[in-house]
Amino acid sequence: MDSSVLWTVMMGIGQVETAPAEESATLLLALAIGISLLGLLCAFFLAKWVLGHDLGSEAMQKISNAIKEGAEAFLRRQNRTIILLAAAFAVVLFVGYGFIRSHREFDPVGTTLELAAWITLSFVFGAVCSLIAGYVGMWISIRSNIRTATAALSSVNEALRCALRGGAVSGLLVVSMSLLGVGGLFALVNALSAVAQTKIPLLIVGYGFGASFVALFAQLGGGIYTKAADVGADLVGKVEAGIPEDDPRNPAVIADLVGDNVGDCAGRGADLFESTAAENIGAMILGASLASVAQKQGMAFSMGIIGVMMFPLVARAFGIIASVIGIVLVKMDKEEKMDPMQALNRGYYVAVVLAMAAFGGCTYWLLNSPQAPAAWWHFFLCGIVGVLTSVAFVFITQYYTESKYRPVQSIADASQTGPATNILAGISVGFECTAIPALVMGAALLSSYYLGVSIKNLNGESIPGAGLFGTAVATMGMLATAAFILAMDTFGPITDNAGGIVEMSEQPEEIRKKTDRLDAVGNTTKALTKGYAIGSAALAAFLLFQAYMDEVRQYAGISLETAFPIDLSKPVVFVGALLGAALVFLFSSLAIRAVGRAAQAIIAEVRRQYASLPREHDMIVFPKDFKPDYGACVDIVTKSALRRMIAPGLLAVLTPVAVGVIFRVFITPDDKLISAEAVAGLLMVGTICGIVMALFLNNSGGAWDNAKKFIEAGAYGGKYIKGPDGKKVKNPIHGAAVVGDTVGDPCKDTAGPSLHVLIKLLSTITLVLAPLFI
Amino acid sequence: MDSSVLWTVMMGIGQVETAPAEESATLLLALAIGISLLGLLCAFFLAKWVLGHDLGSEAMQKISNAIKEGAEAFLRRQNRTIILLAAAFAVVLFVGYGFIRSHREFDPVGTTLELAAWITLSFVFGAVCSLIAGYVGMWISIRSNIRTATAALSSVNEALRCALRGGAVSGLLVVSMSLLGVGGLFALVNALSAVAQTKIPLLIVGYGFGASFVALFAQLGGGIYTKAADVGADLVGKVEAGIPEDDPRNPAVIADLVGDNVGDCAGRGADLFESTAAENIGAMILGASLASVAQKQGMAFSMGIIGVMMFPLVARAFGIIASVIGIVLVKMDKEEKMDPMQALNRGYYVAVVLAMAAFGGCTYWLLNSPQAPAAWWHFFLCGIVGVLTSVAFVFITQYYTESKYRPVQSIADASQTGPATNILAGISVGFECTAIPALVMGAALLSSYYLGVSIKNLNGESIPGAGLFGTAVATMGMLATAAFILAMDTFGPITDNAGGIVEMSEQPEEIRKKTDRLDAVGNTTKALTKGYAIGSAALAAFLLFQAYMDEVRQYAGISLETAFPIDLSKPVVFVGALLGAALVFLFSSLAIRAVGRAAQAIIAEVRRQYASLPREHDMIVFPKDFKPDYGACVDIVTKSALRRMIAPGLLAVLTPVAVGVIFRVFITPDDKLISAEAVAGLLMVGTICGIVMALFLNNSGGAWDNAKKFIEAGAYGGKYIKGPDGKKVKNPIHGAAVVGDTVGDPCKDTAGPSLHVLIKLLSTITLVLAPLFI
Repeated sequence: MDSSVLWTVMMGIGQVETAPAEESATLLLALAIGISLLGLLCAFFLAKWVLGHDLGSEAMQKISNAIKEGAEAFLRRQNRTIILLAAAFAVVLFVGYGFIRSHREFDPVGTTLELAAWITLSFVFGAVCSLIAGYVGMWISIRSNIRTATAALSSVNEALRCALRGGAVSGLLVVSMSLLGVGGLFALVNALSAVAQTKIPLLIVGYGFGASFVALFAQLGGGIYTKAADVGADLVGKVEAGIPEDDPRNPAVIADLVGDNVGDCAGRGADLFESTAAENIGAMILGASLASVAQKQGMAFSMGIIGVMMFPLVARAFGIIASVIGIVLVKMDKEEKMDPMQALNRGYYVAVVLAMAAFGGCTYWLLNSPQAPAAWWHFFLCGIVGVLTSVAFVFITQYYTESKYRPVQSIADASQTGPATNILAGISVGFECTAIPALVMGAALLSSYYLGVSIKNLNGESIPGAGLFGTAVATMGMLATAAFILAMDTFGPITDNAGGIVEMSEQPEEIRKKTDRLDAVGNTTKALTKGYAIGSAALAAFLLFQAYMDEVRQYAGISLETAFPIDLSKPVVFVGALLGAALVFLFSSLAIRAVGRAAQAIIAEVRRQYASLPREHDMIVFPKDFKPDYGACVDIVTKSALRRMIAPGLLAVLTPVAVGVIFRVFITPDDKLISAEAVAGLLMVGTICGIVMALFLNNSGGAWDNAKKFIEAGAYGGKYIKGPDGKKVKNPIHGAAVVGDTVGDPCKDTAGPSLHVLIKLLSTITLVLAPLFI
Repeated sequence: MDSSVLWTVMMGIGQVETAPAEESATLLLALAIGISLLGLLCAFFLAKWVLGHDLGSEAMQKISNAIKEGAEAFLRRQNRTIILLAAAFAVVLFVGYGFIRSHREFDPVGTTLELAAWITLSFVFGAVCSLIAGYVGMWISIRSNIRTATAALSSVNEALRCALRGGAVSGLLVVSMSLLGVGGLFALVNALSAVAQTKIPLLIVGYGFGASFVALFAQLGGGIYTKAADVGADLVGKVEAGIPEDDPRNPAVIADLVGDNVGDCAGRGADLFESTAAENIGAMILGASLASVAQKQGMAFSMGIIGVMMFPLVARAFGIIASVIGIVLVKMDKEEKMDPMQALNRGYYVAVVLAMAAFGGCTYWLLNSPQAPAAWWHFFLCGIVGVLTSVAFVFITQYYTESKYRPVQSIADASQTGPATNILAGISVGFECTAIPALVMGAALLSSYYLGVSIKNLNGESIPGAGLFGTAVATMGMLATAAFILAMDTFGPITDNAGGIVEMSEQPEEIRKKTDRLDAVGNTTKALTKGYAIGSAALAAFLLFQAYMDEVRQYAGISLETAFPIDLSKPVVFVGALLGAALVFLFSSLAIRAVGRAAQAIIAEVRRQYASLPREHDMIVFPKDFKPDYGACVDIVTKSALRRMIAPGLLAVLTPVAVGVIFRVFITPDDKLISAEAVAGLLMVGTICGIVMALFLNNSGGAWDNAKKFIEAGAYGGKYIKGPDGKKVKNPIHGAAVVGDTVGDPCKDTAGPSLHVLIKLLSTITLVLAPLFI
């Protein structure tokens, strides 16, 4: 599809200045739904393209099949658990809204049962879509890995494209389905219910929450699995037995490779699914508020209130197209000399430029108002702020996690005095790395807010709500290329797996070098997308809690222009905030502990398998016929991960509910919203702490990882040094760095990413349950 | 002094229902100043008692003198640096208030120069008092250590009393001087200026800030020193060379012993000095507000507005007396069979009961109002809530840091799979331990707040401000026995040093056992008082930012009854809050990094000294005549600590100032206080994050420490195990636990305690600079 055609079409439509509301809603919905179906179609063709590749030798297939089996078995069992939990919650939701809470004057629909039905239905629908997106994404990724490995036998370019397009299937599925879900639900409610269109988002907030709910458990379960396997494999494999990563003699190696898929693919997919879903709905609520208030001021937007409300969906839809174009354009030069990262970057920049052009078109089309001529381009600038923020996050993440900069080098340097100083250096880097992102987020929020505030109508007045909608538009800008980012993210585990398959099937050095090149790029993209995810989570959170406050106002029957301050100086709100901070810490504790426990089980199992092997100079001498029992490790970690994801998951879900319901005791006639306000305090300070903590966990983990790799690449003597008797012995500096890497693993791949989801879950659960706190 | 006499006196005074304001102010001031002078006198006699003890053998004196020299040299150099920084800040303060800021309508005094003079004077006075309290406290503690060691040669009881009374000198000095300073400044302003008495606290807020300023650098410098020396000594001594703690062959051992004094004594002394000072002034501001508002409602308190305002000083004064009685009552049973901890606890309970009785008397005397008969006993219950909170914190800290409970055991257990899982277990425990304290603090805040709110006047109306004053009274209750707590805290380093002197002078096993008993108690008291310090910091913080908001209202000329919400949903305030959270993380990063860097320097130095020694089985075989160079280590760590305390210190001081001044650009006619509000957001969320982070750092550090000691006591094989050839080799499980202990050291003794000070510095600096943000 050519973007210039789109541009012309949009500009043409932009001429229709005042379409009747019903008609424009139908047009815009059709556009959003149509493009998301198109996105799914693209995903289908990309999948077909990837699956058309060669499967490789039998040895490679054997490994790939083992990974496939392990991953599918885990995901099946995990999904069963999640479905049970979600079903239980759906029942609670339905009973709570339908039978316990009584009908209030300002409810969007006439009966409690209808309210309960829509909220529950959208919750279930969100959960189902999120499960499907995660499952299909992983399905294709465990089929892309072997094909990427086989393609690498002949060409880096083909392997690169195979891995990226495999990842893109996931990315497109996630973003398209999230859009399709929101659009489809909107259409459904619109068709079946008499509710005013601007109130529909209140009924479908459950979609985002359903998605978050699944994402939380998927990320927790997958994250625990992947890191328990990784830590277990590393500790006994690399440190104790001194064998390389992905060595077939390590009994935990298949579990480790399975983990890459179930943690990184399925988890992150569910994470971004809910990001885009929640952000869409939140932005729709804010857009509807803004346009309603503006209308009372006598302002009209080119496509009416509906146009502003639908803007997020339409902008997202064009972002999908931009991402597809960017993805298919990625390829290496003919000699395959270029850095594969450069090829990815080129595609990304194309996607960004196209997405921004379309974004500009959409703002002109839907956010233009004759009564406020500056509106559309101010909002367009907000979108640009969002994009620049994501770029800034990418650079900051690189600075803190790549070995050519000071932070990683300081950790490697500290490894000289042993594991303790390595850990201290890593903690210090992690704590430090929160500062600049906080400044960047602050700058992004304030600049997009004031871009909105500075829009004046013809009387020179500001438009209430425009500032907040500006921050929402910045978030949309940041998420415009989410499909491309997600493709890059899933690219990571696919190349990681491909490398593993090549290593384990003992391919020649030359092939390994090719997959190593891709694997290194995959590590970078994984780190970058994590930075992107936390940045977008932060911006989206601000949007979501504004949506929460709007919702509270609507249910309480307070006009949207009335101030509803979240006053931290009230003791009740302050205590809510304090509990939000503590929640983040306790949640992280449970996530990390889960990994530690599961890893200990794996270590014990591997040690058991190694116990009888002969040793020389503290290193195991493997017999030629050594056959590790991979299945035992896979089984242990599956059970452990599923059992241990429950506690942190329930904690995250139940804490805001408990605060909101219990703090109702503080409601007085003068302060009817105190409980909702305390929940907002919990939500906001929990979000702030969550962002900062996630930055700490993600970046310290990444830095530890790369400090180890830096040493493995030869710094401070590399992996082995000469012992006093001239023989090759393990380098204690490398050993110290491995300890840091191991500590960092659950931080960066379990607790950190789970916190992204926690932040958004807090927002979506409060959105769904807000009526219960009033 | 007999407390029943006091009671009668107080009850008698309570009869005088409506003394004229001037007279009651004089009486109450005289009482507070008189009792604080009495406290100083007690400190003098206790010091004389301790100094009257025997100095012991020449070998012991040699070691003690080395510690004394090192500590005094460090403190001299540190104080020089702090004085320079404080002087620079005083100039900035004077110029800023006197020449840059213009006079405003609602300033408490008539000219800018007078305002500048009082604020600067109180800042300088606070800084000087804090320096003196810290210096004298350390002076006596480095003289108590040798006397405690010598006393232990004959009797545990005498050693216990020596150490506790040595610590009590510090405790009494700190609390009495802080009280004397506030009372004296009040009297001075009252005598020299025409300002209304209720506005005096606004002029002397600089006292608390001066104290915080010194405390911050003292705690940072001392904390970096002590842990760099400790980590350095442990890593090369215990881990690499396999020699015991405090072994004279370790070149870093004297630096380590010096560190206990400069970090734990001087640092914590300065910390609690400013706690009590800031809390006194903050509570006075709130008390004055409450009583003024109540008077407008037609209510009168028994001693008028002044009585309510002076209540904090009077209550604190009686707390000093209660602490002195508790301290002198501490002694062991005749056979010296009892646990020394039990002896301390008995004294503490006496102090608590006496302090509470006096507290009850003071509430009846000063907070009684015929128009609200429930007032005094509601406030008394608030005080009880404060005491119960401190008890709860003590128990929680014990649970998370003592080896008989699950958390420490889980860390020891995780050590079996190496240092990485040990670290992960510790991080997990640390993150977890924030939850229950958050609940306890929340419960304390809300219950004391609602105790205040539920006070009704004769018309059945609440009194505005009574809820907040209730939280202030709870804080006073918690701090009532601060002198005793501080004595127990300083007890720790004195017994630690005494043990070191006994060990290094190679006394018989039997004597070591005695000092070990005391040392174990010292470790417990150190952990408990840290829990106490963070709990009181949390409560005090809430009080202080209410004081800040009152102050902003006063300077802005807004009535005290007008709401001044700190609205987190405003983007500017939210960004302030985000920066507050990031500040806590960045500050912790700098503190930990400083320790890591300084420790690396020490490690390099010790390794240099050990390089030429012969080795056998990976262990150093020390020649008989080995003489380590202690001075080199002391010198390296002194320089390093002083250089590295500057950056985190300035960061803490400058961030709130920068936000307050820069965010003035967001001031609009509709929102004149937005900058002050953003600073409040920074302050409150910084405080919340600081509390949670300090809990994490303190308790994980304590747990790691005790997990190591648990293993050293024999769990998991103890320190050494039998190697494959039957010889004694180092137990790797113990090695893993030592890594955890080392990581925990700077967490619990540098970053954590520095965060306590940071929290309070944020409050006091914003109190002092509030007028600049409006």
